[in-house]
Amino acid sequence: MYEDRIKPRNLWAKVVTPEEAALHITDGMTVGMSGFTRAGEAKAVPMALAERGRRENFKITLLTGASLGNDLDKTLAEADVLARRMPFQADPALLKRINAGEVMFIDQHLSETVEQIRSRQLGPIDVAIIEAVMIKEDGSIVPTTSVGNSATFAMLAEKVIVEINLTLSPILEGMHDVYIPTRRPFRGPIPITNPRDRVGVPSIPLDPSRIAAVVISAKQDSCSTIVPPDDETRAIARHLSGFLEHEVAKARLSSSLAPLQAGIGSIANAVLHGFIDTDFHDLTMYSEVLQDSTFDLFDAGKLVFASGSSLTLSPERNAQVFGDVGRYKSRLVLRPQEISNHPEVIRRLGLIAINTALEADIYGNVNSTHVMGSQMMNGIGGSGDFARNASLSVFVTKSTAKGGRISSIVPFASHVDHCEHDVDLIVTEQGLADLRGLAPRERARVILANCVHPDYRDIIGDYMRDAERSTGGQTPHILERAFEMHQAFRDHGDMRRVGGDRATAAE
Amino acid sequence: MYEDRIKPRNLWAKVVTPEEAALHITDGMTVGMSGFTRAGEAKAVPMALAERGRRENFKITLLTGASLGNDLDKTLAEADVLARRMPFQADPALLKRINAGEVMFIDQHLSETVEQIRSRQLGPIDVAIIEAVMIKEDGSIVPTTSVGNSATFAMLAEKVIVEINLTLSPILEGMHDVYIPTRRPFRGPIPITNPRDRVGVPSIPLDPSRIAAVVISAKQDSCSTIVPPDDETRAIARHLSGFLEHEVAKARLSSSLAPLQAGIGSIANAVLHGFIDTDFHDLTMYSEVLQDSTFDLFDAGKLVFASGSSLTLSPERNAQVFGDVGRYKSRLVLRPQEISNHPEVIRRLGLIAINTALEADIYGNVNSTHVMGSQMMNGIGGSGDFARNASLSVFVTKSTAKGGRISSIVPFASHVDHCEHDVDLIVTEQGLADLRGLAPRERARVILANCVHPDYRDIIGDYMRDAERSTGGQTPHILERAFEMHQAFRDHGDMRRVGGDRATAAE
Repeated sequence: MYEDRIKPRNLWAKVVTPEEAALHITDGMTVGMSGFTRAGEAKAVPMALAERGRRENFKITLLTGASLGNDLDKTLAEADVLARRMPFQADPALLKRINAGEVMFIDQHLSETVEQIRSRQLGPIDVAIIEAVMIKEDGSIVPTTSVGNSATFAMLAEKVIVEINLTLSPILEGMHDVYIPTRRPFRGPIPITNPRDRVGVPSIPLDPSRIAAVVISAKQDSCSTIVPPDDETRAIARHLSGFLEHEVAKARLSSSLAPLQAGIGSIANAVLHGFIDTDFHDLTMYSEVLQDSTFDLFDAGKLVFASGSSLTLSPERNAQVFGDVGRYKSRLVLRPQEISNHPEVIRRLGLIAINTALEADIYGNVNSTHVMGSQMMNGIGGSGDFARNASLSVFVTKSTAKGGRISSIVPFASHVDHCEHDVDLIVTEQGLADLRGLAPRERARVILANCVHPDYRDIIGDYMRDAERSTGGQTPHILERAFEMHQAFRDHGDMRRVGGDRATAAE
Repeated sequence: MYEDRIKPRNLWAKVVTPEEAALHITDGMTVGMSGFTRAGEAKAVPMALAERGRRENFKITLLTGASLGNDLDKTLAEADVLARRMPFQADPALLKRINAGEVMFIDQHLSETVEQIRSRQLGPIDVAIIEAVMIKEDGSIVPTTSVGNSATFAMLAEKVIVEINLTLSPILEGMHDVYIPTRRPFRGPIPITNPRDRVGVPSIPLDPSRIAAVVISAKQDSCSTIVPPDDETRAIARHLSGFLEHEVAKARLSSSLAPLQAGIGSIANAVLHGFIDTDFHDLTMYSEVLQDSTFDLFDAGKLVFASGSSLTLSPERNAQVFGDVGRYKSRLVLRPQEISNHPEVIRRLGLIAINTALEADIYGNVNSTHVMGSQMMNGIGGSGDFARNASLSVFVTKSTAKGGRISSIVPFASHVDHCEHDVDLIVTEQGLADLRGLAPRERARVILANCVHPDYRDIIGDYMRDAERSTGGQTPHILERAFEMHQAFRDHGDMRRVGGDRATAAE
């Protein structure tokens, strides 16, 4: 059945059960696993590892590309196997343990993890577990629906476990482009000058003697949890499209725009989907996760090429795309996340980067990670790689959350992942704030006028006025009131209660 | 006298007084001036412009490389000529106006300004004023002690005014390397793979017909205001050297380390100077401002090559270096700040970046710019370009300021320029916190134990304990107490008064 997927015949003897393979992993080890945004994660071995974790007492440090599907982070967390986790995750059960301080979560820019391993500032990796469609004659492995950090994990790990996924066709071979920067100080430029450039090799180079075990699996990726566009995300898409049309009219952009990056999630997906209804054409993407919207744009004839590190699709799109991969394969490339997110390439190509803010402040500092400043939501992911280096850095968010009880725009971000210098546009369903070339006081006025929900305009306007009059400065703040909206939510369940409190106190 | 400095004879007729040249600048214009960290700024024309500003009512937007010498920012600010200023400045009189909201200051990553002009997101530049040692036969101009943004300003401005500085020898020709990335989407890699690589041309290409005026000046650069090492900066240097020796012992670095960047200022200068007393050898620098310490290291035989964007020296060093430029010229290169600070090159070379924090919080977020969250100190400068992309990002600071009344380590940074993901080490005279691979709660413990001044250990330790116990989370914070130390300073002139207040309230 599986022998045609394992070309080196001497590896056939290494085919074992997931349980046997998992025995290579012992207490205190650092494990590097494939998987990026619910795509291409090793599935059978980690599940067997969690199973063993329920009986035995051991802990590991788990590194991946990004988040995992198939409830793996949940299962591993509940089996109490995870001591440390990096560089990204998005599982509620694991988050609970992270926020309780039980699992140490090291939240990283997604382009940087393997740099730190390569320079031995992190690691070493004891065992790598990599999902593949096949092992080629030379021992190299063809990844599945993501590349993530798999190549570097496999190349630097002491032992490699390969999970052959039989549900995915070997036709995927050729869709990946594995390029690994050379070791410093002998490193040359990354020769990508166009999203479609292939500069590496189609499989992960590996000496077959380092393959400790091969496991056969038939589990599928989990599908994405994207929700379809709604009125608010459509309004966000419209504001951004209108702005970009204006930039084209001003000849600052061509009608093919610039290579697009869109963060994960429903809002960014809706924004990208919205480009179907514009006059932009011959678009390209140089992004991280390719979602449904990428294929919507392909099918609408708007998009000519997409580069990413993973494919994360809805059930329908998944069935359609993997049922007919040949239709898209020549227009797609999946790269290591170090390359999809590399500052060098992002800056060179001059991307338009569209990422989701959890919270933004009136000066344009953005929180992508921490609810109310303390509780981890998911992680920074690639947003920093893109926002810092793009030619146009856009953050999108609905102006409120929790039925209006939370404003996404606040006086002072309760956690800062992206400083004001990295944020060019903020877009909510209310409108768009173009912050380019503006000083902080000016930024605040534009954000207040264009992005803040009407329920919060007075509260935030009062803060701005009071801060300018009392403290003043480049970035006026009254520190004891900076988080008054957050405190109102904590104490009264509604950020709008700030004014009410003050009114009451004054009575 | 000056004719040998202006090779195209037809330009001799364009030699005018500074006052006449300044007439090219009128109300509402955007002016791009040479000058980076008190080095190589145009001197005569802006002074004449300020003089006119005292009599006439007009305002300009002023862009430079970085800060200016010769009190130019002060004089222009006091003449009320500046409406807008970017991307960096460091003058107290101008700062007063910036913090009062009278001058709009756009604080930028120093590598990014010209990208934004080139893509027409900023600008256009009406007039460029560039200091030069000479104009060559082909019209190209040889800069003086900095390159900064001069090349792009000159190449894109409507009109160019050249200030020939007779105090600097034409022997400077050949010290500069002017490389300008091509326009997107046709941009290739920047071919620098070693700090010593010269990849551009030695002078700024310019069609002589675009030179509107030439002015002759004999004013010198202002010297740096660096103070010599003291016990605390020597201790910081010792902690960092010891750490780097440990990294060499672990084979994570060679005994030539990696190309070094050091931010401007006395602490970074002292740290670099401290490398004289180590076993490191054949060091290189890929930095922004080359200060006295660069030449101390040259003279000690420790440093083999230094790349920067400007030379900013003490009076003694200035006299020595420019009295004998030939001695150093082959070991020095000055580049456009876009290149000295370019993410692509910084990441490729794997720099060790050493920058000064104004304030850091217990989780390793760093404030480089805002005193007490609102008042601009100077600007972010290149610190973000380097900290984000270096292989080792170090922030140094004395643990206290104002005679102990301010702690440089606080629970929550009152402004965040560098998020925790961009900060690997924090070093104070108390010790060094190695934050690599640590989660926020772990980072806080290491910073508290190693970096915080003993006077503040209890206050900060109490906050950490209370935040972990009450709010918890990935990054425990109690938002209403996050700025309690800042408030104590504001209300009582001493951050140590936090505990006192609470004790009093409890009585």
